[in-house]
Amino acid sequence: MNKDKEYLEKLRHSAAHLLAAAVMDLWPDTKRTIGPAIDDGFYYDFEFSNPISADDLERIEKKMKEIVKNWKDFKRRELSKDEALKECKGNEYKTELINEFSQAGEIISFYDSGEFSDLCRGGHVENPSKELNHFKLLSLAGAYWRGDEKNTMLTRIYGTAFTTSEDLDEFLKQKELAKERDHRKIGKELEIYYIDEVVGKGLVMWLPNGTIMKNEVEKLACEMEEKAGYVRVSTPHIAKKELFLKSGHLPYYEKDMYPGMEMDDGTYYLKAMNCPHHHQIYLHKPKSYKDLPLRIAEYGMVYRNELSGTLAGLLRVRGLEMNDAHIYLRKDQIKDEFKKVLKLTTDYFELFNLKDFWFRLSKWDPKHTEKYINEPKNWEYSEQILREVLQEMDVNFIEADDEAAFYGPKVDVQFKSVIGREETMSTIQLDFLAKERFGLSYTDKDGQDNNEVFVIHRAPLSVHERFMAFLIEHFGGNFPAWLAPEQVRIIPISEDNLTYAEKLNSELNNARVRSSIDSNSERMQAKVREAQTMKVPYMLIVGKKEEADNTVSLRYRNGKEVRGVDFEKLLSQLKDNIASRDSEIELGF
Amino acid sequence: MNKDKEYLEKLRHSAAHLLAAAVMDLWPDTKRTIGPAIDDGFYYDFEFSNPISADDLERIEKKMKEIVKNWKDFKRRELSKDEALKECKGNEYKTELINEFSQAGEIISFYDSGEFSDLCRGGHVENPSKELNHFKLLSLAGAYWRGDEKNTMLTRIYGTAFTTSEDLDEFLKQKELAKERDHRKIGKELEIYYIDEVVGKGLVMWLPNGTIMKNEVEKLACEMEEKAGYVRVSTPHIAKKELFLKSGHLPYYEKDMYPGMEMDDGTYYLKAMNCPHHHQIYLHKPKSYKDLPLRIAEYGMVYRNELSGTLAGLLRVRGLEMNDAHIYLRKDQIKDEFKKVLKLTTDYFELFNLKDFWFRLSKWDPKHTEKYINEPKNWEYSEQILREVLQEMDVNFIEADDEAAFYGPKVDVQFKSVIGREETMSTIQLDFLAKERFGLSYTDKDGQDNNEVFVIHRAPLSVHERFMAFLIEHFGGNFPAWLAPEQVRIIPISEDNLTYAEKLNSELNNARVRSSIDSNSERMQAKVREAQTMKVPYMLIVGKKEEADNTVSLRYRNGKEVRGVDFEKLLSQLKDNIASRDSEIELGF
Repeated sequence: MNKDKEYLEKLRHSAAHLLAAAVMDLWPDTKRTIGPAIDDGFYYDFEFSNPISADDLERIEKKMKEIVKNWKDFKRRELSKDEALKECKGNEYKTELINEFSQAGEIISFYDSGEFSDLCRGGHVENPSKELNHFKLLSLAGAYWRGDEKNTMLTRIYGTAFTTSEDLDEFLKQKELAKERDHRKIGKELEIYYIDEVVGKGLVMWLPNGTIMKNEVEKLACEMEEKAGYVRVSTPHIAKKELFLKSGHLPYYEKDMYPGMEMDDGTYYLKAMNCPHHHQIYLHKPKSYKDLPLRIAEYGMVYRNELSGTLAGLLRVRGLEMNDAHIYLRKDQIKDEFKKVLKLTTDYFELFNLKDFWFRLSKWDPKHTEKYINEPKNWEYSEQILREVLQEMDVNFIEADDEAAFYGPKVDVQFKSVIGREETMSTIQLDFLAKERFGLSYTDKDGQDNNEVFVIHRAPLSVHERFMAFLIEHFGGNFPAWLAPEQVRIIPISEDNLTYAEKLNSELNNARVRSSIDSNSERMQAKVREAQTMKVPYMLIVGKKEEADNTVSLRYRNGKEVRGVDFEKLLSQLKDNIASRDSEIELGF
Repeated sequence: MNKDKEYLEKLRHSAAHLLAAAVMDLWPDTKRTIGPAIDDGFYYDFEFSNPISADDLERIEKKMKEIVKNWKDFKRRELSKDEALKECKGNEYKTELINEFSQAGEIISFYDSGEFSDLCRGGHVENPSKELNHFKLLSLAGAYWRGDEKNTMLTRIYGTAFTTSEDLDEFLKQKELAKERDHRKIGKELEIYYIDEVVGKGLVMWLPNGTIMKNEVEKLACEMEEKAGYVRVSTPHIAKKELFLKSGHLPYYEKDMYPGMEMDDGTYYLKAMNCPHHHQIYLHKPKSYKDLPLRIAEYGMVYRNELSGTLAGLLRVRGLEMNDAHIYLRKDQIKDEFKKVLKLTTDYFELFNLKDFWFRLSKWDPKHTEKYINEPKNWEYSEQILREVLQEMDVNFIEADDEAAFYGPKVDVQFKSVIGREETMSTIQLDFLAKERFGLSYTDKDGQDNNEVFVIHRAPLSVHERFMAFLIEHFGGNFPAWLAPEQVRIIPISEDNLTYAEKLNSELNNARVRSSIDSNSERMQAKVREAQTMKVPYMLIVGKKEEADNTVSLRYRNGKEVRGVDFEKLLSQLKDNIASRDSEIELGF
């Protein structure tokens, strides 16, 4: 743990003491239990004699600020078991802890600050009155004592603390943003997807809006990959046991796969990866050196056996539709091809206006040969090549030992999302194992059989599920026009303008712009609000005047409005904006 | 059986006698067994003392023509078991049959024509010398005695016979065509798909060429459906047992499904149909009368448990990608919507230039209430509506009693393919059961809950697998340009013209025309042959002269050639041809 992180933990644990002190001051008959630091802050669990509410948090916070002024340090006291039990008399939680500590032979210590004393192992800041000034109580929750539902339900108060007020403000802002932009919340509001308990957990049901978006992402991938010389295939979602024995998924990966299905000609499994199917396609016809690199792409759906309890939203799923491709290469093509894949990846990020990413070169560790395929020369050669690629592309990257895949080094693309979550968006992996397992080979210039076929596994756009979650949160639902499920909503001011609205709508649809008419009998303002709620990029409001001029009143979802826009010009600019996949929706009016 | 068919069967069985007579004449020590009429002709199984080859068929045929001149009739003789056994002494096959017939109490009869006599139950033409003149031996095959692999392997000779020489010629032409156009043969030659034994039988591996074609068909469907007001969804390939219990697939359809997979939260099944998932999507949000008709479309992959021994090519598969949609309707919308679906269907057929189709209105039978949902009023009402639709659309249709689905009447689209195979291409089904099983409902104008939600199941383009087989055979691999995997091949006459070829290729690719350059060092004629073998619609041959003029020498795959074609004009016409999905590839030069 680095110094900053260690300090923050002490600070937050100190804040937990302070929280308990304030609670005991306000409600002296409360029984307090434990209060650790956690990832983003701290909590303390209490048994209140009368329930408190979220409204009380402000009051507690105020009391904490009062108390901390007199806390100059944390003084340690070591007590015998009996002394400790006496001090915690009437609190069965602390009693239980003291008995356990004593039984385990631990020294029993208390820490005192100001008037407050608590059973504690230690780990505090030196001078709370000076250091502990930027904290915030966040929420209330129920929590069973020791996480066991057979025990009493306690009240947990969550809070956080930082060293500066700027850090605290930044955290609170991010937290607010994360809540507003949560893909589960927006996914529901904009009718993008839902999880159906009868269909099963972790299996995404894409609603019409989500299907449009997913298809737009896939169309983008297909276009980019076509330009980059990929060919597409389409393979089944299942295969016989024999294929997965050949690939090594069985038995090594069996627990992550759905169980087998016995048929009259053998056992079948849902695929958890697309590579075995693609390797078979490579083998389908003999290859020559001229056929390489061969880039086989497929947005393939794979199924993985995750525990049902861990599944949530689009980020923990069992069915994953992967932006997959496998590239079969000669050794002399590794560098050039890796560069192309990296370029494709950064081209995508540029299109989506993503900037907060960096690369990690994940290498093997020659000391752990049991974890890696034992081809030292290939490791050395390919790690050096990947390093050169990253240097020549002039991108941010770090190197990490002992982080490679079993079959070769990889480059992970690390991301910091707009809501502050750091994640691996995609990885580009080099594989020198497949050639052996599948007997991949080609005929070289001299007519000789050459079995040095390298494979790149890559999925720059991750899986649909993860990438859609990312897009939803990145844009907060305010998608660029090309990605928006509904691009234009036409709002006639009265029924008299319906024919004109229909004319515009049909011209838009003919140009394959996704538009619709709100012909409800509600008032215009209500219709605008409804379109804004659904984050439709463009509203075209049409009344008498517009109909007479062949214009529209153009309203963006941010509220900006331009009157008297010529419809033909608008249509032409709209088509450009969509075709160029512009990340801004504003047009030149 | 109709009269003609009955007569053909007698004719062909008579021809089998004649075949045996000729064989016995040529190779007297042959042991003959049985010779029935079959669907397309007849066969006779023999045990030859020395193997014969296909080259002998002509000789046998000649002998048959000689012998038949003296066959004026078939004379029946009835024999006792002992007499019969004596007559067939030395032939263990006939001996086995005679013993069986006798045991079963059957009369043992022989039929004599000319010099030839055979154990036979009867069923012949009256005057073979006059009637049996248009026959042809077709092929040789191995066949176990009585189909049991533990028995001797016999030699089966296949043949056919018709009443007129025109019928015979027509049959032989169709047979030749069917052989040439067999989708398995062309599918392999044009690298469209293959079946991989390691992946599993009945699971199609679409190669890059097939994936392009399949995607083109799917794109067509998506465009047509978008215009027709469908919305698209995307659902997983599996679901929990509970969903299929709700739909009734379990237990009624269980043997046709892949077996269940036990997970930590229940049993999961691969879906065999998309309807249950779509019904759940309908239920996801309450519906009003204004939301109907709701047309939910998905090219959904389903998996069905067929016996592995029955699987072949694209026509008998276990994984089916269906041009599926479910339309949710109010009762007053059935007629209009059914008409729209029929129109969509015939629009597709027109686009593919298909004419040999008719419709079948498949109705229930009120006498078999156990086979059908018991809602007589709905049956009466909806059958009358479908009949009216077919009449108003002025299409060929027949009516068939007792052929409906369990849940409602349907219209089957019957097809006669170019190779003479009659099949059901698609069905449009009305369903009044789903509303009950899934509790489908909507809020009507008065705010009342109405549960009269009808569902149309439809798949005009069948499943990808069947439709692609059909397209391959229909076009014999000579696909219209929009459907052809490779649309243009550029053939530079010498290496000097490679730069020009690359310029043209890049212009074509930018216009999203699928083109490539044959830059091999072979001679031009060899390259043309290669492109013709792959049935590439357009070859652009470019040499010095073409480069100087910015023209190409345009060659169609049928051999027709036009020199000095302006490239820009060509590109523009090509784009039109592709965009309009023209079924002819010839351009206006």
